[in-house]
Amino acid sequence: MILGLDPSLRGTGYAVLRSDRARAVALTHGTIACPANWPRTRCLAHIARTVRRLLRQHRPAVCVVEGLFYAQNLKTALILGEARGAALAVVAEAGLEVYEIAPRKVKQAIVGYGAARKEAVGRMVQRLLGLRDVPEPDAADALALALAHAQAAGHPGLAALKSL
Amino acid sequence: MILGLDPSLRGTGYAVLRSDRARAVALTHGTIACPANWPRTRCLAHIARTVRRLLRQHRPAVCVVEGLFYAQNLKTALILGEARGAALAVVAEAGLEVYEIAPRKVKQAIVGYGAARKEAVGRMVQRLLGLRDVPEPDAADALALALAHAQAAGHPGLAALKSL
Repeated sequence: MILGLDPSLRGTGYAVLRSDRARAVALTHGTIACPANWPRTRCLAHIARTVRRLLRQHRPAVCVVEGLFYAQNLKTALILGEARGAALAVVAEAGLEVYEIAPRKVKQAIVGYGAARKEAVGRMVQRLLGLRDVPEPDAADALALALAHAQAAGHPGLAALKSL
Repeated sequence: MILGLDPSLRGTGYAVLRSDRARAVALTHGTIACPANWPRTRCLAHIARTVRRLLRQHRPAVCVVEGLFYAQNLKTALILGEARGAALAVVAEAGLEVYEIAPRKVKQAIVGYGAARKEAVGRMVQRLLGLRDVPEPDAADALALALAHAQAAGHPGLAALKSL
């Protein structure tokens, strides 16, 4: 079982995938939403609590997050880092192995093209997992991370996974 | 009871202060050290676990962290943010109020001079709290944060405290 996480302060995408060699199935996916009027610390607590609940419900053994991140400036990077830290501390305390994949590699694995647009990723994730609807962007990113890891894990050597 | 925290991935300073109008007493202070060969996620788990233990032992009602942070580049800011997020999520989940104070204001409150050097802060913290030794730098910063908050809380209007 693989937990894909795309943390950010206001909308953390998450996905839990069960995968074997034949196929991958999405057990759950969604967004941990924190309204703009919540103080930052309330968001961090909400992210930590929700991730802990996901771990209890699904017991994934592995967690995958984005490796190279995008941030416009130092302040954005700090805030994004806080959201990642809130989520990853829970994951690490629970003993999961944590891997990073670069966003370009995720797109390459899912769409076959490293510079693919967000919508293309969403539609491809929908198709690969047989989802009824195109998932929301944050959840789609988390699903794509988990899927890319599942593919890479099934084909050792295909992608270099770096343990965090 | 006030918890001062100066988070960073490899050395998070912490301090718990009991303060009334007459004086402040340091109940504990130290550094949450994470060796350079630990993976990042192991550090985050260690920070979260140690902060949780501090909360259980001392039950502070308030936490103070640095408001304006210093980071050399986006990667440093992200990593610093992760350490802050790991610590602050635990603090926020436990229901503490979290405040930020700018480093300059802390130095102003403790040494009387916003651009004071680290050693001056350490020696002043030692004197104000009657500590036997000059505390290590990370712990000194955490003690200074908690002290600055105690002073500001005793003199409303002296410093503007921003809730996180």
